Amino acid sequence: MKTIKIIVAGPRGRMGKEAVKLVQETESFELTAVIDHKNDGGNLENIPGFAGISAPIYSNIEQCFSSVECDVLIDLTTPEVGMYHTRTALTYGIRPVVGTTGFSAEDLEELESLTKDKGIGCIIAPNFAVGAVLMMKFSQMAAKYFPDVELIEMHHDRKLDAPSGTGVKTAEMIKEVRDAKQQGHPNEKETIQGARGANIDGMHIHSVRLPGLVAHQQVMFGADGQLLTIRHDSFTRASFMSGVKLSVETVMKIDTLVYGLENIIE
Amino acid sequence: MKTIKIIVAGPRGRMGKEAVKLVQETESFELTAVIDHKNDGGNLENIPGFAGISAPIYSNIEQCFSSVECDVLIDLTTPEVGMYHTRTALTYGIRPVVGTTGFSAEDLEELESLTKDKGIGCIIAPNFAVGAVLMMKFSQMAAKYFPDVELIEMHHDRKLDAPSGTGVKTAEMIKEVRDAKQQGHPNEKETIQGARGANIDGMHIHSVRLPGLVAHQQVMFGADGQLLTIRHDSFTRASFMSGVKLSVETVMKIDTLVYGLENIIE
Amino acid sequence: MKTIKIIVAGPRGRMGKEAVKLVQETESFELTAVIDHKNDGGNLENIPGFAGISAPIYSNIEQCFSSVECDVLIDLTTPEVGMYHTRTALTYGIRPVVGTTGFSAEDLEELESLTKDKGIGCIIAPNFAVGAVLMMKFSQMAAKYFPDVELIEMHHDRKLDAPSGTGVKTAEMIKEVRDAKQQGHPNEKETIQGARGANIDGMHIHSVRLPGLVAHQQVMFGADGQLLTIRHDSFTRASFMSGVKLSVETVMKIDTLVYGLENIIE
Amino acid sequence: MKTIKIIVAGPRGRMGKEAVKLVQETESFELTAVIDHKNDGGNLENIPGFAGISAPIYSNIEQCFSSVECDVLIDLTTPEVGMYHTRTALTYGIRPVVGTTGFSAEDLEELESLTKDKGIGCIIAPNFAVGAVLMMKFSQMAAKYFPDVELIEMHHDRKLDAPSGTGVKTAEMIKEVRDAKQQGHPNEKETIQGARGANIDGMHIHSVRLPGLVAHQQVMFGADGQLLTIRHDSFTRASFMSGVKLSVETVMKIDTLVYGLENIIE
Repeated sequence: MKTIKIIVAGPRGRMGKEAVKLVQETESFELTAVIDHKNDGGNLENIPGFAGISAPIYSNIEQCFSSVECDVLIDLTTPEVGMYHTRTALTYGIRPVVGTTGFSAEDLEELESLTKDKGIGCIIAPNFAVGAVLMMKFSQMAAKYFPDVELIEMHHDRKLDAPSGTGVKTAEMIKEVRDAKQQGHPNEKETIQGARGANIDGMHIHSVRLPGLVAHQQVMFGADGQLLTIRHDSFTRASFMSGVKLSVETVMKIDTLVYGLENIIE
Repeated sequence: MKTIKIIVAGPRGRMGKEAVKLVQETESFELTAVIDHKNDGGNLENIPGFAGISAPIYSNIEQCFSSVECDVLIDLTTPEVGMYHTRTALTYGIRPVVGTTGFSAEDLEELESLTKDKGIGCIIAPNFAVGAVLMMKFSQMAAKYFPDVELIEMHHDRKLDAPSGTGVKTAEMIKEVRDAKQQGHPNEKETIQGARGANIDGMHIHSVRLPGLVAHQQVMFGADGQLLTIRHDSFTRASFMSGVKLSVETVMKIDTLVYGLENIIE
Repeated sequence: MKTIKIIVAGPRGRMGKEAVKLVQETESFELTAVIDHKNDGGNLENIPGFAGISAPIYSNIEQCFSSVECDVLIDLTTPEVGMYHTRTALTYGIRPVVGTTGFSAEDLEELESLTKDKGIGCIIAPNFAVGAVLMMKFSQMAAKYFPDVELIEMHHDRKLDAPSGTGVKTAEMIKEVRDAKQQGHPNEKETIQGARGANIDGMHIHSVRLPGLVAHQQVMFGADGQLLTIRHDSFTRASFMSGVKLSVETVMKIDTLVYGLENIIE
Repeated sequence: MKTIKIIVAGPRGRMGKEAVKLVQETESFELTAVIDHKNDGGNLENIPGFAGISAPIYSNIEQCFSSVECDVLIDLTTPEVGMYHTRTALTYGIRPVVGTTGFSAEDLEELESLTKDKGIGCIIAPNFAVGAVLMMKFSQMAAKYFPDVELIEMHHDRKLDAPSGTGVKTAEMIKEVRDAKQQGHPNEKETIQGARGANIDGMHIHSVRLPGLVAHQQVMFGADGQLLTIRHDSFTRASFMSGVKLSVETVMKIDTLVYGLENIIE
């Protein structure tokens, strides 16, 4: 397999750090440069935490793309510069794998048209955790056969909002294929308010918050005499890297814009 | 070990049927009679569902106790006759193991005084599922060290009330040893009402209802970097029989009134 | 929706009993006859356990198909007569839904050719538990992305063989898509033999046997920082009926032979 | 509550670092010095990773105890110096909380006699994870009532030995109270070797190894119609700190030697 040459934008961020490590540890990947709004002209190996990982640092993305050979840009920066980075990469014939959010419908249209012009792929993924994406996909598939669903999402107790974004997104995905129905006994009664959880389209979502927990979600489907459970546990940020790796490998083979990891997972 | 001679009251009820089966299958137990408001003077083996299990049927409890040798009465009838049966058994020097509820404080005082007079044991247990009782006991013990608790109870979707009685009882038992505290982030916000469940003293209880489920409860304790979970699954009514067996064996060795299985479990 | 007229073969068997109940309880289904090698000429409602469910009983299948209107045959008999029943039904233009095993490759070829001639569907399913089939299907899908798999199957302690058939079948399905690899540390050492379970192609299968359990399987996929778990609990035989119902509804819409529920589940 | 003055030995180790952080963050604790074989005479706040945590560093333990006020020594060093540190602390009237292993029976006898002479407490704990200790304690309690036990321990795939030390220790603790019995069907057969796991006294232990996992153990008790499960998940090293905190608070109130956290947990 030919080595894939990669530039990482945002190497000092939490996700970026993991991505640099991933590229370093993957035999078929090669880090050719990093884009960082600080440290222009320096080398990554001189930045604390990157000892032994040599790569030139560029603050100007166009200068970087003009000077360095590269197949894929992994962009893990911010919504503010994400669109600019993605558009520029495509213009230079570099395939983007982008983890930032905040793209508008117009942005996506423009990028789609650019990928067509250039005949190269582009992957934008708000969630790189392959396991979480599979959990949502399987839940949607199961809901066709098992319309009675309850969802338990569990997070550390410093989380502010309940239910979690992933919990709501899972319910929304299930909703697309499930005939709306109220679950539980028609006359069921909460003797203490809230016991039956949040109600989305008749499905129930329960939010557990405890110190020690990280990010966990369990989707339960019940039917006569059986229970099907799909669960994802995310213990550390490293969980996102399997999705970044898969995206880099996939973006080399496609020539369209893909939004959402679920669309490259079969 | 000497055989324990047993009379079962309420043999045709759902619990009673299991108790008859238990006595039949336990080598050190012997069924000497049954008490049934129907079928007086008949034999159990002629009742459908009891083929091969021979025992005389009495409708009059005093007549039964006068005629039949017996060490223990297993009473699985109704609150209406439970007190009468228990008192009568003690009077005849027979040790009661009682699964009915509805005893008043005065009832219990009277029975306690009777056990003292007679110098024999008496066990009254609203819940014979040893596993459920252990789950509650362990939860109470754990809460001393882990004050952050969330409880998920799961039942079939024909259940009317939420949270379940066992769920509330577990929370009440934890409350006795736990310093009251509000859990979760002080500023946490439900974007959909009910997500964080029912709140008892700052603890959160979540009630899941799905077809296929029977009766399950999971108590979760979180602390920095760790999670302790205690779970009980009750699949069939047979789960109560381990508690009946334990009670029969225990009631032969004690000379006091015990209320609640948790008090004979060490 | 038009009512589907159904004949059940093997109504007194454990699965057959559930199927009769299913047909009875489903509004769009109608039981027009049953096929039973005993009780020829009688009516089902006179057989103990079927009070209130009227249907003529035939011992001769050809006589049954000639006399009774019918769209679908649900066959839950034995491998010995399964092929004969299926072939005969197709000949009479009746769509078979078959739960027996033991069909040879030649049998299936003959049946496929028959379905083509007649232009009607036929579904043969060794396992009707939709949840179990989904568990296997999802496991296969997940293994493409997560090659590190361990499988825990849990059954009651009267089960003779370990690992279970479903466990082995799941591993075989995963094997089709997963690059073979030895899991665990290359130098790992069992200080007590058997600790790491059975090894299929580098995957590990663990068989738990306990009283109280029914039939449960949990497939765990691990990757850096995350865990994906797919679990199926089968509590009662009723779990098979969702698959029978789905098959009856599907067989009315197709005109080919389908072997295995996984092939009608999307 | 009076502030407890604490010296930490081994502050740069993985556990020691957490202990320093714990003392720093606990209002009623005060760090008065650290013992480190390096950096003698320096201050902890100048060591990378301890910015803002001021404490004098001593390499000589006797010099440290002579110069600094202290109630409790938290020793998280190595078996080589553990005994010397513990003995010296007691001699100086300082209460030891010790996490090292390798104490011989003679060592413990000598320390016990020293605690008596001095009238102060001493706690030695090979495992400071309160949750893990409770899991073992509850398992032992449950086994009295449920002799059918299976244990699943799950760790990352860099672990060399199987089953885990905690798994074996749990089984040993259960063995003390459980009548030995072979579990499973008397005629059960492994069609693939190892499926039924490791066998300790008739109990079965299964070792799961997957990337992503940290350290998890689940003890399952089965009986007719029910299942009791006790599970501990250890996600990070922080899980040990609740036990260190509890030990510091307890050692101030006792005047004996305690070996094992299970003996201060009620």
